[in-house]
Amino acid sequence: MIDFDNWSCPVPLRDTPQVVMGHGGGGAMSGELVEHLFLPAYGSAISLADSAVVPLLGGRIALSTDSYVVKPMFFPGGSIGDLAVNGTINDLAMSGAAPLYLSIAFILQEGTPLATVGKIAAAVGAAASAAGVQVVTGDTKVVDNGSGDGVYLNTAGVGVVDAGVTIGPTLAAPGDAVIISGDIGVHGVAVMSVRSGLEFETTVSSDTAPLHGLVAAMLATGADVHVLRDPTRGGVAASLNEIARAAKVGVALDETSLPIPASVADACSLLGLDPLQVANEGKLLAFVPSESAEAVLDAMRAHPYGGGARVIGRCVAEHPGMVVTRTALGGTRVVNMPIGEQLPRIC
Amino acid sequence: MIDFDNWSCPVPLRDTPQVVMGHGGGGAMSGELVEHLFLPAYGSAISLADSAVVPLLGGRIALSTDSYVVKPMFFPGGSIGDLAVNGTINDLAMSGAAPLYLSIAFILQEGTPLATVGKIAAAVGAAASAAGVQVVTGDTKVVDNGSGDGVYLNTAGVGVVDAGVTIGPTLAAPGDAVIISGDIGVHGVAVMSVRSGLEFETTVSSDTAPLHGLVAAMLATGADVHVLRDPTRGGVAASLNEIARAAKVGVALDETSLPIPASVADACSLLGLDPLQVANEGKLLAFVPSESAEAVLDAMRAHPYGGGARVIGRCVAEHPGMVVTRTALGGTRVVNMPIGEQLPRIC
Repeated sequence: MIDFDNWSCPVPLRDTPQVVMGHGGGGAMSGELVEHLFLPAYGSAISLADSAVVPLLGGRIALSTDSYVVKPMFFPGGSIGDLAVNGTINDLAMSGAAPLYLSIAFILQEGTPLATVGKIAAAVGAAASAAGVQVVTGDTKVVDNGSGDGVYLNTAGVGVVDAGVTIGPTLAAPGDAVIISGDIGVHGVAVMSVRSGLEFETTVSSDTAPLHGLVAAMLATGADVHVLRDPTRGGVAASLNEIARAAKVGVALDETSLPIPASVADACSLLGLDPLQVANEGKLLAFVPSESAEAVLDAMRAHPYGGGARVIGRCVAEHPGMVVTRTALGGTRVVNMPIGEQLPRIC
Repeated sequence: MIDFDNWSCPVPLRDTPQVVMGHGGGGAMSGELVEHLFLPAYGSAISLADSAVVPLLGGRIALSTDSYVVKPMFFPGGSIGDLAVNGTINDLAMSGAAPLYLSIAFILQEGTPLATVGKIAAAVGAAASAAGVQVVTGDTKVVDNGSGDGVYLNTAGVGVVDAGVTIGPTLAAPGDAVIISGDIGVHGVAVMSVRSGLEFETTVSSDTAPLHGLVAAMLATGADVHVLRDPTRGGVAASLNEIARAAKVGVALDETSLPIPASVADACSLLGLDPLQVANEGKLLAFVPSESAEAVLDAMRAHPYGGGARVIGRCVAEHPGMVVTRTALGGTRVVNMPIGEQLPRIC
């Protein structure tokens, strides 16, 4: 156990003794916070992944949690309420779990209009109902003006994992096809488009959506799905780097196959962002054996949230832990793990 | 479903169109927020109690969540980390569940010293280890300076409810003995003693503790425990009023039997607080049939967290929905449901 009273911040935390926005960015700094601070503090060998699969009552359940601090709270295509429900559903679904129950906790800033709280709660209710999950318990705290920012939400969720389903980042294997379920970078650009101070206009709406039905359709093909991941904070770049490191494999992307809408590409180019690092809230990445790829793609394309499914690359034995992309001009470049925070408070 | 775009705040929300600190106080205003805003918004018949007992895998599990915004984050006897672990364990235990797994989510304010985050995480780890539960998943978000206040935590927890165990506020029955596990008002006074701007000195330490072991000892007597409740925000007064209303029974307290330490009484008198409304974080209230009371008390007193257990009143058929106390002078007074927030950000 670390003695935090006499602690010198290790270099992997970037030698800053304070929390910086990058610690919340879903990139390398977030990972270092978990590895060098939380795990030693908890003193156990748990992984603190997006969701945990644990035994219960003779079966297995998945448990997941996320807090939401997105700014603004309402954006084209959704709100913090939709994100909170769909995000936790998706973390469960990425374990192959069928989500059943949610908890929802509000931290309200004093002075927030109750109608705003109501609209967010209504979005929670509508999203839960649409996804077929039940909100069964909750909590409300209020903080004084100046100690919050409107509404922060936390959702936790419980789902059941069927016997025989084993999905996880360490299972990525050379030869796997790497599939994305649709357009990249949409959520992040939708939020940035309404954030105060930024003047560009776009018609991009957030892709926030619950993906457990899509996962069920993929699993119903009987394919041995190795890895599922929703590329939220840190985007496709962070998710693929995490998987490559966890499984000690390489990932080779084909840049020309990446589904980046022109509106997202334009906005990213204006803002100096890499679309591969922009958050998605209704997309998933899948690693599946290449011989199953066609069947899985067919099942995905038949589902409302998988219409744009396609193979964007493959898992390789070369350059383990590293993601590279073959560019349109025939060159290759490394897709780095994002370090800190490209878009703060995006979810 | 309410249309929050065209919504006039109903009178039970006190006709204020904005969030006020009282909505987080655990009293009548908190209850009204759930009843008049969250439940209609979620559009379902769920109760949003402190924990929910739901069927899973052929058995029953309890699910609970709480966020923690206590100020200051460290206080005599504990920290926000201890509270977050013990509080969710206790909400599960009050359903009669054996807690097994926790999630923990941090909302960090930019600029918070990482050593502070580490100390809180270490407190989480130590409390979980002491209680025999596993932290299995987590999340970290960072908000900009001015949009947070150090560290906010959320914990959610899952536990298993044994077959045959049915405990809930509607089960309180006339004739039940009302038991408290020990001294009242300790946590609230401990936090207030160090809050900036208050100058009184006290040696009171928070009673934060995990109570599932105590509950197990009580259930092991074979007594038909009707109701369990940890009197946190809003104190004993709020908990007993909620139970009286839920079961449509009366509660008659004997004021002379209330275990209020002199230090708590003195501090409350200085601050103009009612000790019955001050938060506890390591105490429970139990309603048990009078014929089982002695056996339950014996079991409680043999447990480290139940040494001060005693009967403080009884459940009666008279004055349903109301809590009254017989004073030392032989009179009676009504113990009201607290309206708003006596001690803001106490947990």
